[in-house]
Amino acid sequence: MKSVDVIIIGFGVIGRGVARIIMEKRDFLRKMNGFDLRVVAICEINGSIISENGVDLNNALLLSERGRLEKHRDWNSMKSFDVIDKIDADIVLELTPGDIKNGEPGFSHIKESLKRKMNVVTSNKAPIALNFKELQKIANKNDVKLRYEATVGGAIPIINLHQKCLQINEIRSIYGILNGTTNYILSKMTEEDMNFDDALNEANELGIAESNPSYDIDGVDTALKVAILANSVMDKDVRFKDIKIQGIRDITQEAIELAKKHGYVIKLIGDVGRLEVSPRLIPVEHPLNVSGSLNAIMMDTDIAGEITIVGHGAGAKETASSIFSDIIDISDSLSLSPSCP
Amino acid sequence: MKSVDVIIIGFGVIGRGVARIIMEKRDFLRKMNGFDLRVVAICEINGSIISENGVDLNNALLLSERGRLEKHRDWNSMKSFDVIDKIDADIVLELTPGDIKNGEPGFSHIKESLKRKMNVVTSNKAPIALNFKELQKIANKNDVKLRYEATVGGAIPIINLHQKCLQINEIRSIYGILNGTTNYILSKMTEEDMNFDDALNEANELGIAESNPSYDIDGVDTALKVAILANSVMDKDVRFKDIKIQGIRDITQEAIELAKKHGYVIKLIGDVGRLEVSPRLIPVEHPLNVSGSLNAIMMDTDIAGEITIVGHGAGAKETASSIFSDIIDISDSLSLSPSCP
Repeated sequence: MKSVDVIIIGFGVIGRGVARIIMEKRDFLRKMNGFDLRVVAICEINGSIISENGVDLNNALLLSERGRLEKHRDWNSMKSFDVIDKIDADIVLELTPGDIKNGEPGFSHIKESLKRKMNVVTSNKAPIALNFKELQKIANKNDVKLRYEATVGGAIPIINLHQKCLQINEIRSIYGILNGTTNYILSKMTEEDMNFDDALNEANELGIAESNPSYDIDGVDTALKVAILANSVMDKDVRFKDIKIQGIRDITQEAIELAKKHGYVIKLIGDVGRLEVSPRLIPVEHPLNVSGSLNAIMMDTDIAGEITIVGHGAGAKETASSIFSDIIDISDSLSLSPSCP
Repeated sequence: MKSVDVIIIGFGVIGRGVARIIMEKRDFLRKMNGFDLRVVAICEINGSIISENGVDLNNALLLSERGRLEKHRDWNSMKSFDVIDKIDADIVLELTPGDIKNGEPGFSHIKESLKRKMNVVTSNKAPIALNFKELQKIANKNDVKLRYEATVGGAIPIINLHQKCLQINEIRSIYGILNGTTNYILSKMTEEDMNFDDALNEANELGIAESNPSYDIDGVDTALKVAILANSVMDKDVRFKDIKIQGIRDITQEAIELAKKHGYVIKLIGDVGRLEVSPRLIPVEHPLNVSGSLNAIMMDTDIAGEITIVGHGAGAKETASSIFSDIIDISDSLSLSPSCP
């Protein structure tokens, strides 16, 4: 059986979620896709676990959850950039949280991996939102793939839906609910007449909100996703600063009540065509009127017409579904590469 | 530029829709997908247009709309089965309407094409619903592809969404609104208090309903799609007669009114897990509550959770989007086939 070797960079909630599914789905991947996924390195801030024959993931998960990853028998003081430089793999999974100012360390992880001719799959929004064109150029130059389905919409495979299922279509516009926290807050305010602060507290308690909830509430997270979709699916050349951003901090219960009376709800909409993030009135019966922490994205296409897709916008397991979509696609293409003598 | 040769069997609404988009998107396909789509034959009941260097589609469309296809300069008395037997192509597009009792002539068109080692893309529900396993076996044996995205959900790429974007997921269940006519009727009855007969007449006038509207209303069309999804996406071995079918003929305005009062709408749901077609109560705020002739399909998956996709369930142009999804995928795989000396 062919083996596909991966390096995991970042072993937080997302990284561990991916590792769990690699274990859970080992037989499924062998049977359905004909390959074995072998983790040859896991990198964290203070060092790495490295094993050419495959890291013992079970042990890594147990230790990581206790904050004692360095007790793993294959622990090594090598840092991520050394691992990228010295360890060979087919795919690097860049799953660190990115600094939204400069996209680091994800940006450099991705860049160096591509330069070493390793494919990259990432869930890291910031480097893709800030430097997509540059990274894509490096990927093309080195004849490897850069994939980032998990950066937008959690479990919703919006990028691959366009590239693998709606290929003949030109996308006229994309817009929708791209942030689960704000949708949770607005839904609670609408459906349970909760006030903004109580709804935000509840989102925090449920672990839905980002560690810095202002990224959610002030529309920054949505704007990052708008930039990613603009540059990738709509093939624009957009900088993050080009996006007009208005969050939901000023939405009052009175405004929501008034909207309701006229058959509308208020939703925070990321509009990729207009490069704009803003609260908008949506008719109650509109497909984008989804509740709780769901995300919903609408594509207006020239041939298929409007297509809407709804799903979980966050969660380690749900996000892993998108990461695997990219991993499997790259793995399939590895086996199709010409290998004539 | 690589050329991909296709035979179109059936030049009705769908066949002409595809031909129009082949013309419209010629440059797009060259630029984005790197191939030229060349129609080498168009088969109708009484004969065919055949041209090895590519049929003049513009002329074929003009003549077909006037019911005078036989005036085309490349018109030939050869029937579809002779064309399949004698003309070489990469892909056969089987776009005839199928008889729901035996799936003919589509079933034999598909079978003979596969046996001649030509890939097949079809929008023809009946042969896929009735004989999927047999046809798939013939395709595998001959190392060619059988694709049928357009048989379910019109523009909604539900099959490729699963196979190309949610690959790691096992599908626990699929259910939804798979027929636009019944949804149009129920929406009119709900939103405008129209009675059943008036709503059906309106659907007929708009050309949404099938030529025999009982296929829509009595749930047969939905059941065909349930069978297709059960056999393909859920990998079951289901016969059409295994599906329990109840249509919407007996839904009264009173029932709809009562549902509304309690926050529900009535929708005709095809449930692939339960092999059942029946009218069901759906909460107003549920993602499957879509209006007009829209279709909406929900997949419950083990990793991504619930994913809902909404789009146009019918229309020549919209259906062509799904047909092209299959054509492009097959064309990509043609160019990746090993060609070592």
